[in-house]
Amino acid sequence: MKYREMSREQLQKEKQLLENKYEEYCAMGLKLDLSRGKPNGEQLDVSEGFYTLSMQKPLCMSGNMDCRNYGVLEGLPEMRAFFADLLGVPKENILIGGNSSLQLMFDSLMRALVFGFFNSPKPWLQEEKRKWICVVPGYDRHFRITEQLGFELISVDMKEDGPDMDAVEALVKDPAVKGIWCVPKYSNPTGNTYTEEIVRRLAKMECAAPDFRIMWDNAYAVHDLNEKGDILPDIFAIAKEYGNEDRILYFSSTSKITLPGAGVAMMAASEANRKQILPILGSQTIGYDKINQLRHIHFFENSERVHAHMMRLGRMIGHKFAKTLGTLESLAPMDIAEWTKPNGGYFITLKLKTGSAKRVYDLMARAGVVLTPAGATHPHGIDPTDSVLRLAPTYPSHEELQLGCEVLSVCVRLAAIETLLK
Amino acid sequence: MKYREMSREQLQKEKQLLENKYEEYCAMGLKLDLSRGKPNGEQLDVSEGFYTLSMQKPLCMSGNMDCRNYGVLEGLPEMRAFFADLLGVPKENILIGGNSSLQLMFDSLMRALVFGFFNSPKPWLQEEKRKWICVVPGYDRHFRITEQLGFELISVDMKEDGPDMDAVEALVKDPAVKGIWCVPKYSNPTGNTYTEEIVRRLAKMECAAPDFRIMWDNAYAVHDLNEKGDILPDIFAIAKEYGNEDRILYFSSTSKITLPGAGVAMMAASEANRKQILPILGSQTIGYDKINQLRHIHFFENSERVHAHMMRLGRMIGHKFAKTLGTLESLAPMDIAEWTKPNGGYFITLKLKTGSAKRVYDLMARAGVVLTPAGATHPHGIDPTDSVLRLAPTYPSHEELQLGCEVLSVCVRLAAIETLLK
Repeated sequence: MKYREMSREQLQKEKQLLENKYEEYCAMGLKLDLSRGKPNGEQLDVSEGFYTLSMQKPLCMSGNMDCRNYGVLEGLPEMRAFFADLLGVPKENILIGGNSSLQLMFDSLMRALVFGFFNSPKPWLQEEKRKWICVVPGYDRHFRITEQLGFELISVDMKEDGPDMDAVEALVKDPAVKGIWCVPKYSNPTGNTYTEEIVRRLAKMECAAPDFRIMWDNAYAVHDLNEKGDILPDIFAIAKEYGNEDRILYFSSTSKITLPGAGVAMMAASEANRKQILPILGSQTIGYDKINQLRHIHFFENSERVHAHMMRLGRMIGHKFAKTLGTLESLAPMDIAEWTKPNGGYFITLKLKTGSAKRVYDLMARAGVVLTPAGATHPHGIDPTDSVLRLAPTYPSHEELQLGCEVLSVCVRLAAIETLLK
Repeated sequence: MKYREMSREQLQKEKQLLENKYEEYCAMGLKLDLSRGKPNGEQLDVSEGFYTLSMQKPLCMSGNMDCRNYGVLEGLPEMRAFFADLLGVPKENILIGGNSSLQLMFDSLMRALVFGFFNSPKPWLQEEKRKWICVVPGYDRHFRITEQLGFELISVDMKEDGPDMDAVEALVKDPAVKGIWCVPKYSNPTGNTYTEEIVRRLAKMECAAPDFRIMWDNAYAVHDLNEKGDILPDIFAIAKEYGNEDRILYFSSTSKITLPGAGVAMMAASEANRKQILPILGSQTIGYDKINQLRHIHFFENSERVHAHMMRLGRMIGHKFAKTLGTLESLAPMDIAEWTKPNGGYFITLKLKTGSAKRVYDLMARAGVVLTPAGATHPHGIDPTDSVLRLAPTYPSHEELQLGCEVLSVCVRLAAIETLLK
């Protein structure tokens, strides 16, 4: 029965039942973490052949080049081809980084501040005001970078097909608006994928800032939960139609393919962008870790093996998503929440009654279940409606997740009743 | 016989002999590279147990932490202890990076430009003028960073005991002078080590810029060629005596201990510096590659093994230094050059007659032997006296080095005679 159709008395009674249940959970001394988009150890074991690989000769060679030594600023040709194949991005546009795509994003914006882009009127640090579009709910670490670097963060709503493009198109008429964060596939934390129309509007929109940049963080490019995953349109190809390929800075990594701690990150950019970036990158480093690039190459051998590997991981994660969604489904009759049902990625977004996300987070925390803090999905950690929670089902074990979901169900219901009884 | 005591006729005759010899070398179609401070494959083989290490459990664990996953911004405690032990720097001051200490240096200066240091009047990019002290001959990649980042580079001579401190002390009275590059042990390319007096003067000097920084690149900290290596005084301890520990940014790496392409870099800084750096670093990355940190830990086990490892490498490099120095000794009777005789590191500096370094470089190149370009040891690639060449004996094989040295001997003599006959 829908909670809001219950009488006060019915609600009071239900509340008492839930409170009793809640105290039982609290007494269990749980210590569960559903907070971060981290793979579970079982997932990491799937990559065992990667990190146990013995890199003796000839495996440490790339052609005639000894990869143990210095050099190869752009990354090994094999690794560039790996990502080109995986992402459908031209190999010549690809630069290989270290173990962190976040670092490549941060470094890109630091370069923009100090040098500007090739088509910038001036270095961004010298702009009187700089603003950045944040699609919400979104990824806290993205928002933190632009906050740290002194951008005013402007929220735009995520809709089912991608960012609210009417809002984006209006905002980019302001020349102080320099860019937008996008996780275009299985977006963090909503799990949806931008449609062709959205990608096209992003690629073709008229920006007042000549050096506007789309930070295209395709972190979940091949992270489907089942055989029929979402299809993300090729933004480079579409942007080219409008002569706007310089607008795209494209990022990805193997963090959630092999190991988060020891994967390989990449960045793809147009020829004009690369021409400006490479000399600066060449001052920053002689080259990233090539041996780890080769480990990936030898572990995967071909793209069929990547696909099989991702399907294995997808099945593991899929069970956890199913369990979490099952719990949420059990809340449907009460009509107290909405949630996303992604085909891939690492997150589910749970939308609660206005003003109750923080309450659910606190209840969960007191019962020993850590969620991503309420507000983390919004700039400056403030969700103005206090209604969004990000659920990350991958890290806990099946048993832990089962328990965590049960506690979540109780807390969501309890908070909803509290709101109704106010 | 000294060349400058020869008659013109004697010189002409000697020149003819040398030219014939030179043409013989040219006809051999040599392809030798004595240009970069790269280890030879034989050296890299000494680390074989490192890059063939299978990182299955429990080796991928640090205590209870699974290092395959995200996290640990400052680096693993074991790796921080490793560097603390190796360098005599307090463990709590140490941050672990990726595979490149150059990157940590570049990133430090980028942060200074965008944010300033904690004791900066303003972000360095907003300073009207910024200047940087470069000890010459010095390391081209250092100079390139500060050149790229818009500093005016000011040369100060390297003396036997370290930088010309009278000159440095005079320069730092200018508040626009923001820092100095130092390779304090087995300096690149002179191979000398700063004495206690020099280190003390650097630590205690009065700087007009409150945020003056010494970029202390201790790249060759344990890279002795024999049992009795040079001793570098502890700059952190000395700076502390004067309350100037915030002045030091200390860098090192295992690039020339294990692998240049896949080593681990570190940075050490005072508590006040770290306090400012960490939140920014935490926006840049979730953490560097911990599995590679663990590979180092498990490969070396204890500091005796590091010592034995470095002695093995030292003996290999020592033979090559001996061969190179032997060739240079054979030039002594002609009194046409001077050179350094380091106890460690990767380089020998060859000082020729004024105006002949570029000529020797060109002659060598035509004979198929690549040297570090003349001028590379100076800011903007310009050696005002055109007299300095950097020799890097490690990369070629013994046979290649033997040949390279023979060609060098002929080219140095030929260029000297050309100068005398002018």
